[in-house]
Amino acid sequence: MKHWLSKILFFLFIALHTAQADPLPSWNAGAAKEAIVEFVEKTTRQGSPDFVPEPERIAVFDNDGTLWPENPMPFQLAFTIDELKRRLPDETNWNDDPTVTAALSGDLPTLMADNYKGLFHIIELVASGLTTEDFAERVRAWFSTARHPRFERPYDQLAYQPMLEVLTHLRANGFKTFIVSGGGSEFMRTFTEKTYGIPPEQVVGSTTRVVYELRDEGPVLVKTMDGLFIDDRSGKPAGIQQFIGRRPIAAFGNSDGDLQMLEYTTISNPRPSLGMIVHHTDSGREYAYDSNPKSTGKLVQTLADASKRGWIVIDMKNDWATIFGP
Amino acid sequence: MKHWLSKILFFLFIALHTAQADPLPSWNAGAAKEAIVEFVEKTTRQGSPDFVPEPERIAVFDNDGTLWPENPMPFQLAFTIDELKRRLPDETNWNDDPTVTAALSGDLPTLMADNYKGLFHIIELVASGLTTEDFAERVRAWFSTARHPRFERPYDQLAYQPMLEVLTHLRANGFKTFIVSGGGSEFMRTFTEKTYGIPPEQVVGSTTRVVYELRDEGPVLVKTMDGLFIDDRSGKPAGIQQFIGRRPIAAFGNSDGDLQMLEYTTISNPRPSLGMIVHHTDSGREYAYDSNPKSTGKLVQTLADASKRGWIVIDMKNDWATIFGP
Repeated sequence: MKHWLSKILFFLFIALHTAQADPLPSWNAGAAKEAIVEFVEKTTRQGSPDFVPEPERIAVFDNDGTLWPENPMPFQLAFTIDELKRRLPDETNWNDDPTVTAALSGDLPTLMADNYKGLFHIIELVASGLTTEDFAERVRAWFSTARHPRFERPYDQLAYQPMLEVLTHLRANGFKTFIVSGGGSEFMRTFTEKTYGIPPEQVVGSTTRVVYELRDEGPVLVKTMDGLFIDDRSGKPAGIQQFIGRRPIAAFGNSDGDLQMLEYTTISNPRPSLGMIVHHTDSGREYAYDSNPKSTGKLVQTLADASKRGWIVIDMKNDWATIFGP
Repeated sequence: MKHWLSKILFFLFIALHTAQADPLPSWNAGAAKEAIVEFVEKTTRQGSPDFVPEPERIAVFDNDGTLWPENPMPFQLAFTIDELKRRLPDETNWNDDPTVTAALSGDLPTLMADNYKGLFHIIELVASGLTTEDFAERVRAWFSTARHPRFERPYDQLAYQPMLEVLTHLRANGFKTFIVSGGGSEFMRTFTEKTYGIPPEQVVGSTTRVVYELRDEGPVLVKTMDGLFIDDRSGKPAGIQQFIGRRPIAAFGNSDGDLQMLEYTTISNPRPSLGMIVHHTDSGREYAYDSNPKSTGKLVQTLADASKRGWIVIDMKNDWATIFGP
């Protein structure tokens, strides 16, 4: 018994040691990388004063601007505009909709005004009346053909490699990773599992009501424009409570839409906690913006609060050796 | 290498064989027990034509009447009435509320009328204005002192032993188990992890909006009476879509409130599926009711549809050797 047990332990040791050599190879050495590695170490090591039981290891991630780009516009908006164009010949009443006109003429400020009111309106418009399956089918079709205008890749191949490593490192250490994003839940669920390894039930997003119908071909859920829940700003802690029901111990965001999620995760949390902000500082490899973004992603208050709150700012240009995967 | 590998495999084999000897010891032999064992076997055995990949092994369970009793009234209603009584001296305006009067006089039909309108009203009333943490604290305090009038146990020690075995057996085979119940999410989350091994993020229930506030003592979420979502009947598939985002392959219910969840799980599902109905037939050890329940739990349409839909009816009296754990 002793002989084979020692062999197993030896191989386990080698395996673990190899895997843990550098869990974040796309990160340059620095405070941000250290903060992640140390947080995971101290919350998962048995006997550590900061040990957190596995069920409480909840980590939440904003999506647009945190796990992948949100320029030149959020990818769901790019999808929505393409859908408006594709369906406009059949949906003649859309011609009278000023929000549609704004979208088709690329008038982002109008769509973003009043807490993204116009943006959510057109997002709902291209989904309303569809079954959730038909909607997901259209999203998948779009991802399979559309290309990002600058990076010339399918949009779902633009996840930030350093953030994929964070997701993997957290999960390898018993963390459950969730998306908590202003994006539409059903839009995001078409790619989160493949792109981030995050299953649909760990996606918290903006939603409208769906209505159940038992049709001849089987049961369906039909998307409506009613009961909009916007999972942004104060909506993020509310969404976390409604969907997860447990306070996260780690939160990653990149904009003022993530302020309250970072507060909720880190202020007066009886558990040790980690708040991190992806700061877009790399116009060469990605984009550089904070106070004056071209679309979404304004980062002013959250950045101003960072030192007071102990949130770690990730400087994309200096902290990330690689931006996108191969 | 070969030597220790064979030893490991041998011990694994013994361990698995022992664990799988009878995963459902509280079930009598019969069609219901067989259906569960066979469904798990065929959906998890590699190479089986009915194999389902692990991420898609979603099983949903109603709570009241399916995992524990709902007589003489749903336990959340018992809590709510006790809370109304406790707080009535301080909440003098409650005296003018006819629903409160109905609740305090035990007038269940009034509370249940119009799709449980009165019931949800008083449930919201005792939670409204509280932070989610304060509410959870009150629920926990109640569970620690209240006793079921007939079984004279704490309410959270009345889980059905056979159903606990089903939950455990499913999870041991890579299923993710969810509660999908008309009960309040925040009420249920105080006990589901301890009682059923189901973490808060796998509880789908009825909800009202919560509002985020950053107070001096830290961030809180305050319960309101707005935006009621009732996770019952057609609300169940809608809740499953919003919270889980993936169609279940197994559903367990006990009443007409579970009809649509059973339909959604089993009709035209491209995956193999299992629908089961707990039929309360045991007045000696528990309760016997279907078409004429004393409180919630009416079971008429769902029972009538069972043979047409291939749903398996669990006859509590004959299928369960034990009802409650020790």
